[in-house]
This record gives sequence, C-alpha cells and structure tokens, in this order.
Amino acid sequence: MISWKNLDTVPAYKKMMALRGRVNLQTAMAGESGAQRVKKYAAPMAAGLCYHYAAKQVDGEVLSALKELAEEMQLAEKFEALYNGEVINTGEKRLVLHQLTRGQLGKKVMADGVDKRTFYLGEQKKAADFAKKVHAGEILNAAGEKFTTVVQIGIGGSDLGPRAMYLALENWARQNGSLKMEARFISNVDPDDAASVLKSIDVAHSLFVLVSKSGTTLETLTNESFVKDALKNAGLDPARHMVAVTSETSPLAKSRDYLAAFFMDDYIGGRYSSTSCVGGAVLSLAFGPEVFERFLAGAAEEDKLAANPDPLQNPAMLDALIGVYERNAQGYPATAVLPYSQALSRFPAHLQQLDMESNGKSVNRFGEPVSYVTGPVIFGEPGTNGQHSFYQLLHQGTDVIPLQFVGFRRNQAGMDVDIQGSTSQQKLCANVAAQIMAFACGKHDDNPNKHFEGGRPSSIIIGDQLTPEALGALLSHFENKVMFQGFLWNLNSFDQEGVQLGKVLAKRVLAHETDGALKAFSDLMDI
Amino acid sequence: MISWKNLDTVPAYKKMMALRGRVNLQTAMAGESGAQRVKKYAAPMAAGLCYHYAAKQVDGEVLSALKELAEEMQLAEKFEALYNGEVINTGEKRLVLHQLTRGQLGKKVMADGVDKRTFYLGEQKKAADFAKKVHAGEILNAAGEKFTTVVQIGIGGSDLGPRAMYLALENWARQNGSLKMEARFISNVDPDDAASVLKSIDVAHSLFVLVSKSGTTLETLTNESFVKDALKNAGLDPARHMVAVTSETSPLAKSRDYLAAFFMDDYIGGRYSSTSCVGGAVLSLAFGPEVFERFLAGAAEEDKLAANPDPLQNPAMLDALIGVYERNAQGYPATAVLPYSQALSRFPAHLQQLDMESNGKSVNRFGEPVSYVTGPVIFGEPGTNGQHSFYQLLHQGTDVIPLQFVGFRRNQAGMDVDIQGSTSQQKLCANVAAQIMAFACGKHDDNPNKHFEGGRPSSIIIGDQLTPEALGALLSHFENKVMFQGFLWNLNSFDQEGVQLGKVLAKRVLAHETDGALKAFSDLMDI
Repeated sequence: MISWKNLDTVPAYKKMMALRGRVNLQTAMAGESGAQRVKKYAAPMAAGLCYHYAAKQVDGEVLSALKELAEEMQLAEKFEALYNGEVINTGEKRLVLHQLTRGQLGKKVMADGVDKRTFYLGEQKKAADFAKKVHAGEILNAAGEKFTTVVQIGIGGSDLGPRAMYLALENWARQNGSLKMEARFISNVDPDDAASVLKSIDVAHSLFVLVSKSGTTLETLTNESFVKDALKNAGLDPARHMVAVTSETSPLAKSRDYLAAFFMDDYIGGRYSSTSCVGGAVLSLAFGPEVFERFLAGAAEEDKLAANPDPLQNPAMLDALIGVYERNAQGYPATAVLPYSQALSRFPAHLQQLDMESNGKSVNRFGEPVSYVTGPVIFGEPGTNGQHSFYQLLHQGTDVIPLQFVGFRRNQAGMDVDIQGSTSQQKLCANVAAQIMAFACGKHDDNPNKHFEGGRPSSIIIGDQLTPEALGALLSHFENKVMFQGFLWNLNSFDQEGVQLGKVLAKRVLAHETDGALKAFSDLMDI
Repeated sequence: MISWKNLDTVPAYKKMMALRGRVNLQTAMAGESGAQRVKKYAAPMAAGLCYHYAAKQVDGEVLSALKELAEEMQLAEKFEALYNGEVINTGEKRLVLHQLTRGQLGKKVMADGVDKRTFYLGEQKKAADFAKKVHAGEILNAAGEKFTTVVQIGIGGSDLGPRAMYLALENWARQNGSLKMEARFISNVDPDDAASVLKSIDVAHSLFVLVSKSGTTLETLTNESFVKDALKNAGLDPARHMVAVTSETSPLAKSRDYLAAFFMDDYIGGRYSSTSCVGGAVLSLAFGPEVFERFLAGAAEEDKLAANPDPLQNPAMLDALIGVYERNAQGYPATAVLPYSQALSRFPAHLQQLDMESNGKSVNRFGEPVSYVTGPVIFGEPGTNGQHSFYQLLHQGTDVIPLQFVGFRRNQAGMDVDIQGSTSQQKLCANVAAQIMAFACGKHDDNPNKHFEGGRPSSIIIGDQLTPEALGALLSHFENKVMFQGFLWNLNSFDQEGVQLGKVLAKRVLAHETDGALKAFSDLMDI
C-alpha cells in the first residue's frame, strides 16, 4: 500500500541529514582509494551507458541511508503505481503515461475506453507511415515536388525536447545516411523568431508540424497564422504544408487545415512528450521512423532499470537520491548539466524545463507547504565551451554547485584531426576526465588566487557514442530521476500551475483591463 | 585616495544587512503606490533604454544605504582609476582598458609606449578597411569570387560575446540592408562542432577569423587545423581564407598564414572583448564597419553614465548595488536573465561568462578569503519561451531567484501578424509586463497549488528597438555592473585562475602521465 508522505517524516531523512559533510572528496578521491571508488561507484545503464558517481560525496554510510530513504519513501512502489496506471497527477486527476509511449512496464493500462499502449503505438505508426510516404515522394507539394525541410511549431515541451533530440542526432544521421529532411523550430511569440526561420528555408518545400495539445496555445496558434500568411504570400495552399499533433478533443483534431493529425492525450505532460508524437512526428520526418524507434528502444530499456527497487542497480533512482542529499543535507542551490558533446548543446535547456517545471514547487501533492527546499536551479552548456566561461565560479566561487557530466568516447561525424599527438575527440575526453578530478580534489597553491579547494561533487554518464539508443536512455534517465525526486519531495511533478498567473495577466494587458503598476508597465511597453 | 577593502568592513554594510526583508513587494507594488514606484524607480540609459527597478525590494531607506555603500566603497573613484589606466587587474599586474575600445572617459592612457586609445582605434580601422575591401570585392578568393560567409573560430570570450552580438543584430541588419555576410561560429574542441559548421557553409566563399590572444588556445588552434584541412581538401589555399585576431606578441601575429592580422592586448580580458577587434572583425565583416561603430557609440554613451558617482543616475552602479543587496542581505543564490527578444537568445550565455568568470571567486584582490558570498549563478533563456519552461520554479519554487528582464517595444524584422486583436509583438510586450507583476504581487488562491506568494523581485531594461546602439548600451551596462560588483566584493574581476587546473590535468591525461582516479577515468574514456 502506497503512502504519500513528506520527505521529513521518515526516519531515514534524519539519518541522511545527520550525514551532512560526511565525505571529504579531496581525500576520498586521492591516490589508490580514488581509483577503487571509480571501479566501485558505477551503475550500468541501457545502450552501453554507465552512471559513475565516484566523485559524489557518498560512501557506504551515505548510500545505506539513501537506500533506506528509498525504501521508506516507497520509490519503487510509487513508480510501479505510476506505470500501472494509477492517478499520480493527483491535482489534475490524471494518469502519467509517458513511459507507455516506449514500452509496457507493467499491467495493461486502460483509459478513455482504450488500451493506452495500443493507442500510443497506433499514433506512432500513423506518424511513421506518413513520414515514409513523404520520404518516398507519395506525399508531395502542389507542384509535385518532394519536401526537404520540416519545421516544428510549438513552445515549451513541444519545442525544447524535440529540438534538443533533433540537434543531438543531426550529425549522427548525416553521417549514417539517415538525414531525410532538415528540421527547424519556431517557438517564441516574438515575431522575429518565425521571420528568421522562414527566411532561412524554402517554404515551397517545407512541411510544418503544428504541436499544441489543447489546440489553444497562444504562441503556437499565432506562429501558425504567421506561417500560413507566408505560405499564402508565396502562392501556396497551407493545408498542403501542415500537419497537427494535438489531442483528439482539440479544435485542430478534425480540421481540414492539415494533411494529417497525430494524437497525444492528457496523460503525457509537455515536458515528458519527446517520445510521444510530439517528438515522433518531427523526428520520424527528419531521420526516418527506424531511427525514432531505436530512440524509443533505448528509452524503454532504461525505463526497465528504473523499476529496480535497489538504488545501486537503478541509476535514475540513485541519481535522484544523491541529488536530494546534495540539495537538502548539503544545502547546494543549483545543479549544472555539462555534456561534453556539441550535439547535446540544447539538452541542458530541455533538462532545465523537465526538472524546474516538475519540481520547482513549494506545496506537496496535498497542497500543504513543505518545510524543506525542493527542485534546484538547473543550467548548463556543453564542454569544453563552459570551461572557458562559467567554470571559474564552479571551481573557485563561494557556493558549491554539483555537476552532472555526460561524455562519449567517440564523436558522431566521423571527421577528426590529429594535433600535437591527439585527436580532438581525445582532447575532449581528456578534458572531462581532468575536470572531474580538478573539481573533486582541487590543488594546493601557496598563491591563494591559484589555490583550488576541491570538494566539488560531480557525476558522469559515459557512453561509447551518442546514438539514437543512447539518447533515448539518457532522456529516460533524467525523466525518471526527476520523477523519483518528486516522489521524495512528495510533490506532484506533473502539473505546472505556476505558469498560469502570467497568462491571465497578459490577457488582461492585451484587453487594456489593467490599473496601477501593471498599467504603468503596459504603458511603458506601448501596449 | 583609493582604498581597496572588503565589503564587510564599511559601516554601510551593516546598515544594508540590517535591512534584510524590509520591503514587502506584494504591498509596495499594489494599487496606486505601485504605479508611483514605476514612475519613480527608473534610471535612463543610453540609446533610449531605461533601467526600471520598481519591482525590486528597495525603498528610500534601502537606496540610501546602498548609496552610502557606494560612497564608502568608492565605486566611482575605483572606476575612475580604472579608466585612467591604473593597474586594476592587480594579480596579473595589468591595466583594464576595454572601455577605451569605444571611448575616452578620462586621461590619455599610455602603455607599451603607445596611447592605447589610438592603438585600439587603429586596429578598429584596420578591420574596417579590410571589411570594406571584402565587401567591395577588392579582396576575393582564389577564383576571383566574393566571400559570402564569415566564420569565427574562438572559444570563451572570443566566441560567446561576438556570437551573441551577431545573433542580436542579424535580423535587424537583414531588415536594414546591412547584412553583408552571414556569420558562423566554431568553438568546441568536439570535432563535431567544426564538422557541423563546415557542412553548413560553402568553404570556397568563406573567410575564417581565428581569434586567440595568446595564439596558443588549444581548442582554437585545433579547430584552425580542422578548417585548414577542409580548405586543402577542397583544393583551396588556407592563407587566402583566414585572418587572425591576436596579440602583437603572439606567434600568429607575423605569420604568413593569414590575409591580415588585427591586434588586441593583455589589457582586455576575453569576456570584455566584444568591442575590441575580437568582436570588431567578425561584426564589421557581417554588418559593415558603420554598424559596428554604432554599436561602439552606444557602449561609449553608456560608459559615460557609469562614471556618475550618484547611483540613482548610474544604472550600472545601481543594478550592481541592488544585486549585492539581494545576494548578501537577502541571501538569493542565483539571478535569471530573461530577454523578451529572440535576437538576444545567446545574450544570457554571454552574461553567464561575463558575470560568473569575473566574480565567481572566494579570495579578495589581496588573496585573502572573503567571509561573504560573491557572484551568483547566472542563467536564462528568452521570453516567452522560458515562461513555458523553468518559470514554474521562479513563481512557486522554494528559493527566490531575482530576475533581470529586457524588453523592446518594436521588433526587428518588420514582419508581424494580428491575431485576436493584437500583434505578436504586443503579445510579447504584454507578457513581460504581466510577468513582472505576477512575480512581484502574486495572487491569493484558496487552492494552495494555484496560490502565488509573490515577493519575487525583478528589474527590466526597456528600449524602443534592439538597434546597434541599444545593443552596445546593453553590453556596457552589464560589463559595468559586473565591474562594480567586483569592487563591492573586493575581487579582481579581471583574472580567471580557476580555469587553469583543468587545463594542466587535461595535458597530463593526454600525455598518459596519470594515476589513481584520474587514470581510472581516463581509461573509462578510452584515452
């Protein structure tokens, strides 16, 4: 029987809090003991990835407390309830089913009178068939020519995840002959965003994927109009250039304005929708359905690991527990995500939404204020770029910021250059290994300005290459990490009421129904 | 006489700390009093911009304490010393002269036997003349054809600032007939970065700008080789396609491998180099020298305001003081930068370097540990995109994160669409006005999950349009803000020793001179 309770109500919480400051990373990671930790503190993931946490501030004692915490907080049971179709999004009274878009972890889940796994597979197949027809030249533009570009119109979860996934695989696909169509993304209501994308493409050979679950997202509908105007101005029929990804009940679902419509539902939150048709349509068009299926397979394999009740064999659960130890026991305010892969340039922005929108909350799932801190600030840029930027603060600033590295042994594009006895890829890999140790152990210098205190914890996920499977596993890892942290903090990680007030006030501004400071600011903005 | 002293040694510090929690934003910003604050709490900037701080947690009392702090910490005198050429980068025993690239605020500054203003102007003119010749077709490729694309090769300050500035003006320039050449940027040592850029351009018509002050930056030299290989493979002579931006003493300075070389010096840190030739070469090639001069003029005008000793008439100083109040008295750990302009999509990444690399330090300029927190984490994405992402945490998370908005009344590209009675630009502007008020005042709801506490401070810089002048003013504002905060925390904001250890260890990894955990991680990465 599941009991939803606050983090600070279980015995292991006190145990964990008492272990604050327990591990001295500088000594733990030094010499042979450090090498032993690297061997010992590793949890295999799917698709050949591995989560390494040797440079985290943990030891047997801390891990044992975290394992107790996982049991007392019933993390595995709660995940089981989720994938078996219980109402986990309690505020909105919804199931949480994004894992079903890539596999069946538990029982058959029925909702809206259908088997939801069958439903998601069906929509995926519709998108796959559509993409194949486009690639085969069975669906053409009015002039009988093939489409060469796909443009996703969406915002938030309909943009950040799919965009990050596209960029992650673009070079890989080009190298492997799978780049069927180039993809672009329009998201911002700033008209310069759409204008800029439209100027960079050939609209006559572009397919637009409009993504809005409700069919009412202001930014997305505005940008749709923008695009339709551009198509009409070019003498083209918008209905021959657009498809929709939406819910079956949305006004877009049955519209004749689209070549096709692919459906999602209320059980998949925007930020968890990359493996649904929200990601599936654009990624199948860009790379072909086979590549998208490989991506899903990687995520499904990783989801299975997340069902293991032993955190030491469940990297997402372990990552979540260590993150809570860092946030609540150690008191660290932020986490940096640092992929040593240019292909993952927008992956941190996706995780920023995934994490901060899920767990940036102050009341528990019953609406009661919690008396502990919850989700941290998430930010990051790819290495080695970040090394020449904000790493100064990470190494020598007054706050400790835990780090989440990601690295691959091989690059994607198959081009490299050997300079001073090493390839670029080797330099990249050497840098991430070096950073982990520099952060953990620091280095004494008699000049205090050149002194590195160390004691700055990091983990690294290492893989062979960023393939579709590896990307799916990576995505699943972080989705499940965020879910487990939500369970630990007793939050509803699947709603986002915090974005509503701004929308309401913006409508009031546009209707000129304001007074006081809001009117004053509106006047300043000339509205 | 200037006295360099720690923030917590002056009387106004105690006064400021005692004012923690003084202003209740919810009540201060409500009703007519809120409207009055919007009128009163505004500091005009250059290029028609204005810094609005009504929604910050300040009142007469707080501002008066901050003014005393500015006086006791001698902020104006320290800036004066800086622009008059004193050795402000004490650790490295260097002058700090980036303001001289755009104007002469004080005395003539002599160094290395020359008047530095004359030197910077001379290099700027060299870059301008070169750009004009390229645009006029006087400098052509080997086939006698014009160059159409410029590619900057650099990392850190040689990348983030120039890239952010280029993106900020690309649409504006296209609309105003000033887009002479499209620009691309290669930065990461990840070989997929260069591969990806090279695949997106026509190398035969591309000019490459290699930027490295020392001429020894690993990533940049590696990427240069990568590019040279690509040029040779295409049957082209690299020396006809490359220019260098470097110091006069670097190995690149006199090399015959470049069509031209433009010089910077040790008095301009990478993150402060956008207005030097580091930004000047690529921006003059992309937009023409006249646009770059307008950008410099905006920065110069804003620099003048920063010399005013009265913080109420010095927006950069005021912004810095309020930031220190938020960080040290209020205890906030991070600051979000939120431009409501897609053109500023990489501006937050530039500020992240500028701020975190300058002030992410734990020892003062004499190498003594400070007993207060210094630079915060800086992160951000453009609105309205961020609203659909991490704003959830900003509105309802357990930590308060101060916000720095930027907004413009008009867009750049001159295309817009009217939906539901308003243009996209009006929607964009309405949203930023609405967000300020939602963060400040919140809104009571009986459902605790839909309740907004408010009390989350923000400022906004408002301008008419993101022109070259406005961009220059914006850049100068933040450079000077960071400088003043460095003075307040008594840091040397102009060195970056925290990036060295990682470089040293990476070299050791590549030389296979490692043991312990570093060897273990290197083995895992297959090096």
